Amino acid sequence: MSTNFAERMKTATPSFIRESLKLSMDSSIISFAGGNPDSSFFPIEQVETECRSILKYNGQDVLQYSVTEGYTGLRAAIMERMKRIGIEGTIESVAITSGSQQGLDLSGKLFLDKGDEVIVESPSYMGAINAFKYYEPKFVEVEMDDDGMRMDLLEEKLCKCQHVKMIYTIPDFQNPTGRTMSLERRKKIVELAERFNVMIIEDSPYYDLRFEGEPLPPIKKFDQNGRVVYLGSMSKILCPALRVGWIVASPEILRGYVLLKQAADLHSNELAQEVISGYMAKDSLDFHIERMNVSYRGKRDLMLDLIENCFPPEVKFTRPKGGLFLWLTLPEYCDAQELFRLALKTERICFVPGDTFYPYGGHANTIRLSYATVSGERICEGMERLTRILNAAVGQKN
Amino acid sequence: MSTNFAERMKTATPSFIRESLKLSMDSSIISFAGGNPDSSFFPIEQVETECRSILKYNGQDVLQYSVTEGYTGLRAAIMERMKRIGIEGTIESVAITSGSQQGLDLSGKLFLDKGDEVIVESPSYMGAINAFKYYEPKFVEVEMDDDGMRMDLLEEKLCKCQHVKMIYTIPDFQNPTGRTMSLERRKKIVELAERFNVMIIEDSPYYDLRFEGEPLPPIKKFDQNGRVVYLGSMSKILCPALRVGWIVASPEILRGYVLLKQAADLHSNELAQEVISGYMAKDSLDFHIERMNVSYRGKRDLMLDLIENCFPPEVKFTRPKGGLFLWLTLPEYCDAQELFRLALKTERICFVPGDTFYPYGGHANTIRLSYATVSGERICEGMERLTRILNAAVGQKN
Repeated sequence: MSTNFAERMKTATPSFIRESLKLSMDSSIISFAGGNPDSSFFPIEQVETECRSILKYNGQDVLQYSVTEGYTGLRAAIMERMKRIGIEGTIESVAITSGSQQGLDLSGKLFLDKGDEVIVESPSYMGAINAFKYYEPKFVEVEMDDDGMRMDLLEEKLCKCQHVKMIYTIPDFQNPTGRTMSLERRKKIVELAERFNVMIIEDSPYYDLRFEGEPLPPIKKFDQNGRVVYLGSMSKILCPALRVGWIVASPEILRGYVLLKQAADLHSNELAQEVISGYMAKDSLDFHIERMNVSYRGKRDLMLDLIENCFPPEVKFTRPKGGLFLWLTLPEYCDAQELFRLALKTERICFVPGDTFYPYGGHANTIRLSYATVSGERICEGMERLTRILNAAVGQKN
Repeated sequence: MSTNFAERMKTATPSFIRESLKLSMDSSIISFAGGNPDSSFFPIEQVETECRSILKYNGQDVLQYSVTEGYTGLRAAIMERMKRIGIEGTIESVAITSGSQQGLDLSGKLFLDKGDEVIVESPSYMGAINAFKYYEPKFVEVEMDDDGMRMDLLEEKLCKCQHVKMIYTIPDFQNPTGRTMSLERRKKIVELAERFNVMIIEDSPYYDLRFEGEPLPPIKKFDQNGRVVYLGSMSKILCPALRVGWIVASPEILRGYVLLKQAADLHSNELAQEVISGYMAKDSLDFHIERMNVSYRGKRDLMLDLIENCFPPEVKFTRPKGGLFLWLTLPEYCDAQELFRLALKTERICFVPGDTFYPYGGHANTIRLSYATVSGERICEGMERLTRILNAAVGQKN
């Protein structure tokens, strides 16, 4: 039989990263491809302790249907954390999602009609592009520099485009580039969103993973009129598999999200929410994050050292101050998809070709590397192998 | 500021049932409104044991990102159960969802373009209507009798409508009516779907909750060409809060679902999946279901007895052979929304007015009752109170 799928399925393609998970499970391959956090830091015992005590004291309730907005204790704890970074609000300003991926999907569903425009950083997180695309928008790409999305170019696009509904940005240690938006631009983007009457979706799963420098306030701090939706996640700072993220928005807009979540999955896993809430109540989250940051910082330093000392000078790279990723720009004649296949076959290493981070492809000469899950030893070995690949690729032309 | 939501949000309304959860938490109210299973049966200790052993032996993996399709062990265990009821397939035929509500949402996303038609039983599950409506279809209602959706009327509608993409049915102990589709009609609906080239979404969360009579094969058993998608759920047979459901479909169609799930929430909570898989491996699920069925059967019998002996004879009712619900049809001049407000205020009881189960409302003289979570004593007390309400309502006219 021929199946009549909806129109939106014409653009459906598997995410490169999700598919490459299968590769990363092969331990003979050194993978810089994943977006995973380092599982050796997962607070397994604490999760187990919380599970036990919650099930013991409140098992019947915690296993029953619950409210779509999320567990009240967790919403309150998250709002406390939000206040510490300058985001004001009450419990009515926050709802729990099934990972921040769900926040992205619901953002598309809440705001996008077919043909609307979404402004994204160029490059941007492929999971967001993937979530939005099923609502059939046009993507408008705005280039970045080391201070994040360029506001002069954003203003140009906003002047030119007629149907922009939202600007999607990852201001902190961006996926895939590792870049962070400057303070000045955080203020400017809100000003522009106001002037052109568009929403900002601020996606900040890496916010707490800062290795150096002073934290910057989130864009949402400068939001006077409920124009910014902030998406947070436990996936990178605690663990991904419990699938707990959150949305902070004005109560009016949050109501829309909650109605859509109700239709999407009724509510998120209640046990997971209460486990995280219990864990947070013991004040161990910040200490946990600090330990991870020490490790990630060391790995970033190692990778940057090896890039500086070994890579051909034609290869440009970013210097992230936090997060999981850095970004390579090769000479224009290099094709990272080709290098990906070659590297996998001849050197048993893996990375993400950068074209997957652009809604319409292109930029074949870019690569995303993650240092987060690879041991120091394997970073050294893997970067040596990658150096061989890059030397050959760059040298080919010379 | 005025927010520019997507067009689809114009139809957004909170689900009556989700909202009424707040009422059902007030223990001074006797509620026949919920769709909850009886939490006193939740296997709390077993869930705790599984959590502990999984986290102990495999904590790092179980808390990390995982594959969209779901945990392999659980997929295999579910496919085994499916085979027992006549659904053939391999592990490639099943994917795990975040509750079967997600299966409904993704079904809408996979098949429905704006303006397409969805055929639903009249009445139907409001959560499905709610999930589908954001894809902006037209709902086409087909009346039921005690053998489920009427095939003569279905055929008529299929002849008349030009844009039907799918037929949505709950063949077993339907929500809200408690009715079960006959064997003959299960064969006929597949035949009609073939002839008119439409999909069938078979939603069967209550399948195992049969109190009497022989189980009927699922519609999917008669599916030769991958035209039937089967949605299953752990929510009613184990517990809802872990949010684990499943989709069985042809591998080609399942790939579409998996791509959409990837965009929607990456994957479902891995710990929950492994807990349920571990629980199922101990062969305790069937015994657990049997215990619940004994209890539910007793409550159903009690409620039916009270209806027969106390309600005014003008009130018609269904006799479910399983599941959680039964359905009242009052004389046409009765308005269940009005009775709902009156019952809550004067008698402190709660039920669901039936109009919420129709995509375009109407049928104000219908009511859904659930017996599942109410103790025998409170069923007696609550039905006495409801009898007073109904006597007054029916008597008013006489």
